[in-house]
Amino acid sequence: MDEVPGSVGTSASFSLRLGQTIFSSASLLFMSLGVEFYSYTAFCYLVTIMGLVIPWSFTLALVDGYSVLVKCPIRQPGILLIIVVGDWVLSILTLAAASSTASVVDLLLNANGSNCPPKLCSRYNISAAMAILSWFLSLASALFNLWLLPSL
Amino acid sequence: MDEVPGSVGTSASFSLRLGQTIFSSASLLFMSLGVEFYSYTAFCYLVTIMGLVIPWSFTLALVDGYSVLVKCPIRQPGILLIIVVGDWVLSILTLAAASSTASVVDLLLNANGSNCPPKLCSRYNISAAMAILSWFLSLASALFNLWLLPSL
Repeated sequence: MDEVPGSVGTSASFSLRLGQTIFSSASLLFMSLGVEFYSYTAFCYLVTIMGLVIPWSFTLALVDGYSVLVKCPIRQPGILLIIVVGDWVLSILTLAAASSTASVVDLLLNANGSNCPPKLCSRYNISAAMAILSWFLSLASALFNLWLLPSL
Repeated sequence: MDEVPGSVGTSASFSLRLGQTIFSSASLLFMSLGVEFYSYTAFCYLVTIMGLVIPWSFTLALVDGYSVLVKCPIRQPGILLIIVVGDWVLSILTLAAASSTASVVDLLLNANGSNCPPKLCSRYNISAAMAILSWFLSLASALFNLWLLPSL
């Protein structure tokens, strides 16, 4: 069986997972350090989804790191299927959360008579950007693993 | 080669494409019959994406209808690849547009001191719901065609 770069158990996959963990943690931190996030539905949704993505990516980063160290990648179709489905679901949810947040921030910045302090709003903006980067890496992981799936 | 239900050139695919066309047209109509949509970035984005989805789905519905009638489905890998990539890109864009619109509508409905007339806002809400239904059908099409792709 040929090795797909970026699939589970390779060092490229480890970097992707690490990137996802870092970007989603950054998104969560930038969002929740502001005290007003719970008054907007989209921001609460982003925090919820990031709370799901961080443990998922972190666990898979640990698995990948371990697989690289012992040079024995996971190749059970059942486990890979769970990883692929989880990746796809989380990447769709992350995209929805990131675009909701971005559009709400845009509305808060541009609306007439909005009372959003520029410092707080730019923090929300950075959070949305981090979430989009995290979505991008998550989509890459999902695609690589989906590519590997039929060859098992 | 086994026939995948819902892939290009079957009657299930024709129904999916028809559903996408109907839901995205409904979404576009509900959004653009209101006169204020161009003052919100998310709503302009939804209108743009729906303007891309409608001709794409309509063309493929025609192709599917023709294939069903002449009983000769398209099986060139190159054409199928273009359809799969287009479906995925459009389904990602539709999801982003739908969730942006939904979150902005939610913000407009719940924000203090918002001046959104209930009639207009509920129309935006229906538009977002139609866009999400259109995304759902588009994702189904993309999955079925992706499933067919390795067997060619």
